[in-house]
Amino acid sequence: MRVFLIGMMGSGKSTIGRILSSVLDKEFIDMDLEIEKAKGTSISEIFEKEGEEEFRRLEKDLLKKLVHRDEIVVSTGGGIILDKENRQILKGENAVYLRLPPADLYRRVTVKGRPLLKEGKESIFRIWEERRELYEQFPSVETSSQSQWETVAAISMKIASGESRVLNSSSHPVSISPGGFKSIGRMPNAVVSRRVERIFSEWIPSSALSIDDGEEAKGFHTLFQVYEYLMDRGLSRSDVLVGAGGGTVTDLVGFASSTFKRGVPLIQYPTTLLAQVDASIGGKNGLNFKGCKNVVGNFYMPSETIIDPVVTLSMDEGRFEEGLVEAFKIFLITGQYYEKFKKLCGKLKERNLAALSEMLEEAVKQKDRIVSMDIRETGLRKVLNLGHTLGHLYEPLSRVSHGMAVAWGLEREMHYFAGLGVIDEQLYRDVSDTLSEIVGLDFPQLPVEEALRLLRNDKKAVDSESAEIEIPVVKRPGEFEFLKVRLDDLLAVVV
Amino acid sequence: MRVFLIGMMGSGKSTIGRILSSVLDKEFIDMDLEIEKAKGTSISEIFEKEGEEEFRRLEKDLLKKLVHRDEIVVSTGGGIILDKENRQILKGENAVYLRLPPADLYRRVTVKGRPLLKEGKESIFRIWEERRELYEQFPSVETSSQSQWETVAAISMKIASGESRVLNSSSHPVSISPGGFKSIGRMPNAVVSRRVERIFSEWIPSSALSIDDGEEAKGFHTLFQVYEYLMDRGLSRSDVLVGAGGGTVTDLVGFASSTFKRGVPLIQYPTTLLAQVDASIGGKNGLNFKGCKNVVGNFYMPSETIIDPVVTLSMDEGRFEEGLVEAFKIFLITGQYYEKFKKLCGKLKERNLAALSEMLEEAVKQKDRIVSMDIRETGLRKVLNLGHTLGHLYEPLSRVSHGMAVAWGLEREMHYFAGLGVIDEQLYRDVSDTLSEIVGLDFPQLPVEEALRLLRNDKKAVDSESAEIEIPVVKRPGEFEFLKVRLDDLLAVVV
Repeated sequence: MRVFLIGMMGSGKSTIGRILSSVLDKEFIDMDLEIEKAKGTSISEIFEKEGEEEFRRLEKDLLKKLVHRDEIVVSTGGGIILDKENRQILKGENAVYLRLPPADLYRRVTVKGRPLLKEGKESIFRIWEERRELYEQFPSVETSSQSQWETVAAISMKIASGESRVLNSSSHPVSISPGGFKSIGRMPNAVVSRRVERIFSEWIPSSALSIDDGEEAKGFHTLFQVYEYLMDRGLSRSDVLVGAGGGTVTDLVGFASSTFKRGVPLIQYPTTLLAQVDASIGGKNGLNFKGCKNVVGNFYMPSETIIDPVVTLSMDEGRFEEGLVEAFKIFLITGQYYEKFKKLCGKLKERNLAALSEMLEEAVKQKDRIVSMDIRETGLRKVLNLGHTLGHLYEPLSRVSHGMAVAWGLEREMHYFAGLGVIDEQLYRDVSDTLSEIVGLDFPQLPVEEALRLLRNDKKAVDSESAEIEIPVVKRPGEFEFLKVRLDDLLAVVV
Repeated sequence: MRVFLIGMMGSGKSTIGRILSSVLDKEFIDMDLEIEKAKGTSISEIFEKEGEEEFRRLEKDLLKKLVHRDEIVVSTGGGIILDKENRQILKGENAVYLRLPPADLYRRVTVKGRPLLKEGKESIFRIWEERRELYEQFPSVETSSQSQWETVAAISMKIASGESRVLNSSSHPVSISPGGFKSIGRMPNAVVSRRVERIFSEWIPSSALSIDDGEEAKGFHTLFQVYEYLMDRGLSRSDVLVGAGGGTVTDLVGFASSTFKRGVPLIQYPTTLLAQVDASIGGKNGLNFKGCKNVVGNFYMPSETIIDPVVTLSMDEGRFEEGLVEAFKIFLITGQYYEKFKKLCGKLKERNLAALSEMLEEAVKQKDRIVSMDIRETGLRKVLNLGHTLGHLYEPLSRVSHGMAVAWGLEREMHYFAGLGVIDEQLYRDVSDTLSEIVGLDFPQLPVEEALRLLRNDKKAVDSESAEIEIPVVKRPGEFEFLKVRLDDLLAVVV
């Protein structure tokens, strides 16, 4: 498969193309660079010395060669679509137009010496007007208000096949499906996060309700919006409700579907990596109430969960890595895929789609194994709290995301147990190195009094006056137990 | 077993005693009347001609005889507790003091010519002061702010054994237990209706939350009160939550327990007859939202449901009968206990406790059979909508209670189907006579346009423009089917 990026100069074809090629595991080809390399001279010089016509001939020749190659991502020259034959060729390919208003384009290109800009600012507007109609014959992605990752995700979604592998989860079918998100377009009753709606708007049904994602939204005020939406749409108990978003949206929609008219069928599209790994299995949902996180909620199984790794490509740096930490935790607990994860870590950080799909499939399978042994979370499932005891200190005191805090907490807990001799120094080093590669480990020292107070209030503390707390520890990958430790001792590793 | 009612003149011993005796299936004995009968003269004359001492002797003789009889409810003379020996005897019996402030007493007795009141208003206050301490040696029921039925219920609760029969319901244990309500006293986390709290205050734990009952309370504002109560009490997932009240309270508490911390164990004490018959089986709960009844809710099975017929004795006239209509509907659908119900109807109207217990046991068993065949209410269970199609017109248009409306609706639906020849004229007559005995059938003619509009909006209408509706009909007791009928035809029987 080949992907051709087209668009004006400055629309980001090269930058996006390079990221896209590592995401899609394809070779990246910049046509301008390729021509320069073949001719041993710069594009400007070809224009000056041999004229634009000669450049266009070289460009067409190269294009004709490229369509006989496979597994490439190509950044084309801005003028490639001027030629009718070129356009014909590109229409038979995965060609995506990176769309950007000319004012934005001008801002981007003025810093560089580009041949077509010699004529000054007006030229870019003139060229844009000339080429606009030709570009718009191609599928496009609007890039002006998007991050690079969002653009990469939007392009990848366009070309993703939507093929899916259905896992035999113990509770309900879970599909791992790159491009599977597009099927949301056929769903009339959908609640989606505003973020997902913005990036993937072309697949979001116009009847969908979009809501805020994030902790603030996760309460009854948003639930009531969802209920009102369902009432307005006259949703009956045989209609399906769809949720698409991060943990907040899937929790809200999960709760709404379980309680609207005493339960309507539900399809979940978790769209953050954390939600895909963490929330997609087990049917847990939750709402915050009066400042208490998840104090309201229940268990409700979706009819189907669709995990599309392409959606997660759009995530901000940091948020994406939270999901990797969660997955790593699962592999550490089960011991399965642990070594593989460590090897793939670099590729996963680059969001390589094949690695991501494989990793997600493994994480979901293993999360399911843990959860199915303890569906109502009375015992075993608590091992998923790994890293949470100290993580719960970093989260408020260092004001970092939950995922980051858990990563730091996990590193410190392992450090503590290695110091006690409960676990191998080498295992601790391994875990620490991997976490460092995923999120970095520049954690601060915590203020001792606040940390102690928080630790005392931890719900795992044997009693509120107790000097001990019971926490899970992985002794070897795949082998864990729960140990009682003294609060004071544990505290020493974070202050 | 014997019950002795003690208390000042005017405290209602005779009236309450008479009702109580029919409730408890015992002979009623009014000691004053008994003495008058034996002597062939009135108490006043005995006082005048033979003196109070002689009367007290006769009274003590009678008391000594009565404690050798069984199955009696006795209304004692007001002064019986003046004698030490009498008090000793009564302390070994079920003796209940009907307590009332002297001002209320005076108001009640001034209309009658009673011997001790010849001295005027002051005397009653003086007598009350003299006897107060003696009365207060006995268990008492405060009657001044209570209806007769509430007093009867409170007395019956005191003497009820709390023995229970556990039914093998398909989903969870249901106990039929006269006096079983008293066990709520051992439950630290309880939500009770204000009404029940007022009448049975001596058994309500001080830690309980009391909330309003009734449709107005059945929404998120009350749910939030319950959540806050549970958070204040630090309820954990291993603690039990208890609900005690009518359908509103059991629905609210059912929903709260199913959604607090993803589900806590629940014990339900439905306290209205309708809730005992209707809501106690099947785990349904519901909340109103934005004017839509029960649009939010789910299915959640209690660990146990305790059905105490004694609590229902306290119900207002009319409200009690709603429960009888619901039970009758169930017997009509299943055909079981249908004939027995018709025979017992008079006793049930009198709230005879034995009949009520037996009827409740049968209704619960049969409701369970219907529900267990269709737990998520997709088909069969809809037969419970019998009478609801036309009932839903009477409820808003005649502003009567749901139970009354369903009774009228059922009568009219049967009338309609008898007219069509779908059911036997005799079956219709039977049903009509029974409903007439339970609630009366003085239904008004409905305004044709409003009735048609409501009927068209019925969720059972095949589509909103449809001229047809599908409704359940019982062709013979125990034999039902669903029939499509024309809206216009059906309407003719109510306008």
